Amino acid sequence: MEFMKGTTGKEGKEIAEMIQLLDGKAAETERCKEITVTTEGAVHRIRKMGELVFVILRKRDGILQTVCDPALPGMAGLKEEACVRVTGKLLAEERAPHGMEIRVTEVTILSVPEEALPFPVARWKMNASLETRLNRRTLSLRNLRERAVFRIQEGIARAFRDYLHLQGFTEIHSPKIGSRGAEGGANMFRLSYFHRPAVLAQSPQFYKQIMAGVFERVMEIGPVFRAEKHNTKRHLNEYTGLDFEMAYIRDFSDLMQMETGFLQYAVKLLTEEYAEELRILEVTLPKAEEIPVVRFEEAKKLAAETYGRQIRAPYDLEPEEEQLIGAYFKEHYNADFVFVTHYPAKKRPFYAMDDPADEKYTLSFDLLCRGVEVTTGGQRIHEYTMLREKMVKRGIGEEGMEGYLEAFRCGMPPHGGLGIGLERLTMQLLGLTNVREACLFPRDVKRLEP
Amino acid sequence: MEFMKGTTGKEGKEIAEMIQLLDGKAAETERCKEITVTTEGAVHRIRKMGELVFVILRKRDGILQTVCDPALPGMAGLKEEACVRVTGKLLAEERAPHGMEIRVTEVTILSVPEEALPFPVARWKMNASLETRLNRRTLSLRNLRERAVFRIQEGIARAFRDYLHLQGFTEIHSPKIGSRGAEGGANMFRLSYFHRPAVLAQSPQFYKQIMAGVFERVMEIGPVFRAEKHNTKRHLNEYTGLDFEMAYIRDFSDLMQMETGFLQYAVKLLTEEYAEELRILEVTLPKAEEIPVVRFEEAKKLAAETYGRQIRAPYDLEPEEEQLIGAYFKEHYNADFVFVTHYPAKKRPFYAMDDPADEKYTLSFDLLCRGVEVTTGGQRIHEYTMLREKMVKRGIGEEGMEGYLEAFRCGMPPHGGLGIGLERLTMQLLGLTNVREACLFPRDVKRLEP
Repeated sequence: MEFMKGTTGKEGKEIAEMIQLLDGKAAETERCKEITVTTEGAVHRIRKMGELVFVILRKRDGILQTVCDPALPGMAGLKEEACVRVTGKLLAEERAPHGMEIRVTEVTILSVPEEALPFPVARWKMNASLETRLNRRTLSLRNLRERAVFRIQEGIARAFRDYLHLQGFTEIHSPKIGSRGAEGGANMFRLSYFHRPAVLAQSPQFYKQIMAGVFERVMEIGPVFRAEKHNTKRHLNEYTGLDFEMAYIRDFSDLMQMETGFLQYAVKLLTEEYAEELRILEVTLPKAEEIPVVRFEEAKKLAAETYGRQIRAPYDLEPEEEQLIGAYFKEHYNADFVFVTHYPAKKRPFYAMDDPADEKYTLSFDLLCRGVEVTTGGQRIHEYTMLREKMVKRGIGEEGMEGYLEAFRCGMPPHGGLGIGLERLTMQLLGLTNVREACLFPRDVKRLEP
Repeated sequence: MEFMKGTTGKEGKEIAEMIQLLDGKAAETERCKEITVTTEGAVHRIRKMGELVFVILRKRDGILQTVCDPALPGMAGLKEEACVRVTGKLLAEERAPHGMEIRVTEVTILSVPEEALPFPVARWKMNASLETRLNRRTLSLRNLRERAVFRIQEGIARAFRDYLHLQGFTEIHSPKIGSRGAEGGANMFRLSYFHRPAVLAQSPQFYKQIMAGVFERVMEIGPVFRAEKHNTKRHLNEYTGLDFEMAYIRDFSDLMQMETGFLQYAVKLLTEEYAEELRILEVTLPKAEEIPVVRFEEAKKLAAETYGRQIRAPYDLEPEEEQLIGAYFKEHYNADFVFVTHYPAKKRPFYAMDDPADEKYTLSFDLLCRGVEVTTGGQRIHEYTMLREKMVKRGIGEEGMEGYLEAFRCGMPPHGGLGIGLERLTMQLLGLTNVREACLFPRDVKRLEP
């Protein structure tokens, strides 16, 4: 009987491992032991230089220079985007990426493309429009800069989960098909669920609140669906939500403190573990040591007075106003983030807790990052009677909310939470100009593929 | 200007913190310093004992005994499922959970339920049918045993991510709305996407394969939608998929080794960090040190011969056969897991790599855990020509797959991967009898709420 024991006989070396091998050799100084390595990768570029061929491999942790004799068996079939396994001597080479190269003694071609790439993926900046890059996303992501965006995105999601785990949050998975949307409005995708009308979740709002009554602190990373018809640079119709909800808050500043803690943790994690990607993208991460807090009305006034802009929509912030508020706090406090608090009740959902000091406002906030909203959060109503009153006042029926309401009828702790758009936050951290660049396979009004 | 600095002025203590405080005090032996603590929780039970009231609080990390004088202000309004903040002296008390209790000097009632719970949530085993517990899930999850299942589930997902991260996998988020299902067949949920026909993802298959061409090793944890009409104890119509895909495999045993490594890591993590939940659920985790591997045909024959069962469906395993195979390997090898390999090509999707030694079979496998399939995986076709031929042979059109096929036309590494059903694995690890018990808010043919 054959058994699996969980150890792979992996022979191919990653770049990080090769760097370690070379460092080890350097430590042996004069003995100059020879290091033979095997590694795999996609052929990123081929350059002929006199008698030699430089084959640059693209590996998951970077690019690697290999030097081949064109007379080696297999070399004739080599093309860009072929996948190969090479064996050879690993040597220090200052001029090559990561200060090393492999002098190849054996090449095995693992696969050969049928067709050349439609645009120069191996170039630092591909000569292709965003439209083309998105249409041919499965190829454009092979570009080092394009793919680095999604390593950073992974880092943000890891930071969110790891930080909240340390703070006692439990990760949940709530259903994405349901009988009713949590956020109301018309922007719901509808489907037939075994002949019953159903919708795709606009947010995990109801479920994370319910679960705050079970685990006190919960988080979820999952898809969120919004059938918004507008096609802007900052909206997607499907995006990844980073959500948390926490019970026993003293007031809603606990939520902002928790988010600030996460952002500080994220900046640290990215700096420490994603330095190569930050370098590739030439990015300076925002400062999150301290984040100013300003009331909605005050922020609106500051933007209007400082930049001479008339207030048109009194109950919400227009994108341009967010930009101006961002500019103001950058200029006056050198702040990349700003919490805008006490949004008008009119523009907040029914579950938002009104400010007892003035019911026109809510105990809620948005977080702006470099002038763009990346988070909406706030304290929620936790008393059944108050919740029902607010629903009645807004003409919201109970249908499809029986389970949610039952949780409140049987007792819920004071709680609040927030939702962050992962792509939006990635875009703002990296200074991208279109949220589609921060989404692997974006979905918008016109884009359902690839 | 007010600033958030990422530090919460959190005063309420968790149980783990209180245990530490008491241990610290014990270390001071005779000095007997008094420890005053504040903490929050939901009132799990109230028991009157003579002059005193024992108020058992339910907190996120367990239950906590508090002792109150009924004359204390606020005590009159106390009910089960009220949420409270209490302050008092923390004392060692052998007979109480975690060996401690709080002698309360101050009670603040944070919220009061309108209604009593419909079934005894505070009891060890609630006296309610699965149907009732699922219908009133928002309440039944407050039961200590019910909620412990989802802490374990969190642990499994953490193990998957953490282990694969250490192995160089990048986490991705692929779209759940698309123009075409990856797995084919009729079990797709359909919706209208801005007047275009669309479907919900049956799996992240195409996307994770494409991304194996970008990051070599990728993983995703996300919802998966299957419009299967059968209502069984082991199927859900929406479940959480743990998916990975890895490039440059030498053969498909690399995939099984990786999964074995994950399972070993998961057992270790659960044992170390979720001991309390395992104790609550009285669970013995399966052994994953080594996992036997058996070919599909051999497994089928073993089940038939050993247990006298006739083979009816030659190309697939029926649930009863999986059970018998599980029983056989438990009996003969004391194995809780078994890899069944080389499934017939007929029953595997078009992207599965046929076995070059015999094209009736594929280089694929299922993993059974205690007699139930929890994983399907295998090597994929990575050559464009072979992929197209297989599609043509099966009458599969290219529509909606242009991006996927383009990735292969421009070169893909040899690769393979697998998908694990998180709820199914949770069910099998914990010995539950219905997969709905391992899903927070299950979706089945009849259940779209809560």
